[in-house]
Amino acid sequence: MATGLDERLERYAAVAVEVGANVEAGQTVFISARIEHAPLARALTRAAYKAGARYVDVYYGDQHVRRAMIELGPDEALDYSPPWLVERWESMRGGAAIATTGDPEPTLLADLDGDRVGRASMKELSRVSMQHLQDRSLNWTGIAFPSEGWAQQMFGEPDVERLWDAIAFCTRLDEEDPVAAWREHMARLDRRAKALNALGLDALRYRGPGTALEVGLLERTRFCTALFHTAAGRPYTANLPTEEVFATPDARRAEGVVTSTKPLALLGEIVKGLQLTFEGGRIIDVQADAGAEVVRAQISTDDNAVHLGEVALVDGESRVGKTGLTFFDTLFDENATCHIAYGMAIPEGHEGDETGDGVNVSTVHTDFMVGGPELEVDGVTADGRVVPLLREDVWQPPE
Amino acid sequence: MATGLDERLERYAAVAVEVGANVEAGQTVFISARIEHAPLARALTRAAYKAGARYVDVYYGDQHVRRAMIELGPDEALDYSPPWLVERWESMRGGAAIATTGDPEPTLLADLDGDRVGRASMKELSRVSMQHLQDRSLNWTGIAFPSEGWAQQMFGEPDVERLWDAIAFCTRLDEEDPVAAWREHMARLDRRAKALNALGLDALRYRGPGTALEVGLLERTRFCTALFHTAAGRPYTANLPTEEVFATPDARRAEGVVTSTKPLALLGEIVKGLQLTFEGGRIIDVQADAGAEVVRAQISTDDNAVHLGEVALVDGESRVGKTGLTFFDTLFDENATCHIAYGMAIPEGHEGDETGDGVNVSTVHTDFMVGGPELEVDGVTADGRVVPLLREDVWQPPE
Repeated sequence: MATGLDERLERYAAVAVEVGANVEAGQTVFISARIEHAPLARALTRAAYKAGARYVDVYYGDQHVRRAMIELGPDEALDYSPPWLVERWESMRGGAAIATTGDPEPTLLADLDGDRVGRASMKELSRVSMQHLQDRSLNWTGIAFPSEGWAQQMFGEPDVERLWDAIAFCTRLDEEDPVAAWREHMARLDRRAKALNALGLDALRYRGPGTALEVGLLERTRFCTALFHTAAGRPYTANLPTEEVFATPDARRAEGVVTSTKPLALLGEIVKGLQLTFEGGRIIDVQADAGAEVVRAQISTDDNAVHLGEVALVDGESRVGKTGLTFFDTLFDENATCHIAYGMAIPEGHEGDETGDGVNVSTVHTDFMVGGPELEVDGVTADGRVVPLLREDVWQPPE
Repeated sequence: MATGLDERLERYAAVAVEVGANVEAGQTVFISARIEHAPLARALTRAAYKAGARYVDVYYGDQHVRRAMIELGPDEALDYSPPWLVERWESMRGGAAIATTGDPEPTLLADLDGDRVGRASMKELSRVSMQHLQDRSLNWTGIAFPSEGWAQQMFGEPDVERLWDAIAFCTRLDEEDPVAAWREHMARLDRRAKALNALGLDALRYRGPGTALEVGLLERTRFCTALFHTAAGRPYTANLPTEEVFATPDARRAEGVVTSTKPLALLGEIVKGLQLTFEGGRIIDVQADAGAEVVRAQISTDDNAVHLGEVALVDGESRVGKTGLTFFDTLFDENATCHIAYGMAIPEGHEGDETGDGVNVSTVHTDFMVGGPELEVDGVTADGRVVPLLREDVWQPPE
């Protein structure tokens, strides 16, 4: 058990438990992982018990089982949420949760009917998850597990060690004291968010190849980092890595076109060259070089999925960006560069708990990447002053 | 996907779904498997959807997660049943269920404290499972999946192909039409059960090396096969393979000593040379060459675990017995030879649904093997007539 591999995994799991979910002694810890992530799920379980967890509950999902449902199951199965799974998600209230990402078979669903793939989501489960976000009812985090299939997709060869190195760099495992390094990093992002809030912005303007978009901000929009707090006040880092400052846009105000700058892994497919057109805050057209159907099906899931729920700024200092890699995994790619999400607003991105009046509510939240050196981002104040925010991936406001 | 391996797995899954659980179109199918059994769980999922399942729900257990709980978790975690898992088991009512066996890491828990291992069972979940048995509320089956670790334990080398061959022989996959072969086999066992019932036995007597045991039978004891029926009348085969005829003993009447003739895989440990002493129907002493503690902890789980719940007769014609192998897996080993179970009585083994008055109720049901060529089994009628049932593994009564 004392091999190098296990030590790295143990260190990684400890950061996820201490910095990520920040598990409190006596909490029940809910781990949700794909079966291929079992080595990480097991390491997380041990780390959580060492942190004093009362009970660690691991739920393994299997994409092959999901594939069989989409391919062979009846229509009614597609958006069915088993009641016992809904109860599991409900019972996370007051607990800690860790979800793993990193797709070992990124093209597993590629040959299936895109419409059925897009409709295949446990709606009721998503609703409960979004409610937890809304209620800040648990401390949770997301963390990735490398695999041959994922490495193959990224590098064209199954070089798991190279992927491990990239993940270790992005999650600051290469630092002598990763916990301290994370604390320092999050403090810096927090200064950046505070500086943005001091500007009193009313809108963001994006300009770049295939992109000319203006997104309104609310008076109660507040830029923040992924260092969240539960309703009870416990801090946690909602995903590792994280490099963003983000905020809730005015869901009613988005005009123009935005073109994605990185592929998006969505519900088992890879969406490439995504281009969304907005009018009056709504997505009115979806184009893509690949995977448009999945996006179209997803934004039809509920009435508000066509509205925006998040705008996030990431500069060239991002460790994820510095790797120069496309991870085909939102956890990483969204932290490489600026992104936008359609669907539900994250409560941390605005003041007050009320939704509506421009704060979007949906069972969907999908981030897609729009940043890069060719993207210029400006802030616009209520009195029309234009403040450069990003130029050639360099952060412009004082930090 | 068209390799020989997948065809075999597909054929195996089809037998489990058609002959085993006998899934009805429109049923929800609950598959419970260890993560290492994923290839079988996936094949079962596909077979179930092809049989018209409304939804297939797969729950993966992970023995490493359980190990972490036993090793590092608090005492209260040991017998905790997560409410959402209890709800899953509850919602099986009216559905079909398939559980997989075959331990890929048979000694994983061997270095842990035996008392904690014995106490580590989801009590509430067991209660619900036993209630389902009692209510005949679902059609279910158990089926094994071969693995290197299991093969290593059996053969001293990780010869999975040899294990596959043995499993295929025992589950009649080697027959041209396995479904027809199973029908014929079950009819033969059924004739055997009927012949036993015609004898009007009041007790069974076991004689062999280390064994001199008399077990009482109830007036409403009925020998039967593993071809069960749900309360709604749907037939299913409760495990594959099956070679036994079994019945409910009088839980109040067991006197003497019985020595196990095969190792018993129990809660992650291997119990060897188990010897139980009975007085007034109760186990009053547990001895073993290995693993006695796990048995002692298990029979302390509730008040009635010390009483017997099943007596089963298997002769030398058993395909499992013919392999000459010890599988270290109860599903197979109990079908190689005569066995006895302490704990809960199976409703099929007696007439009427009432428990008590000699029909045991417990959250435990553990079969252990007592048969072999040196064991002589007699039946004793109420008027004292002795009827030989097994001599040198040969079935004695007319079939």
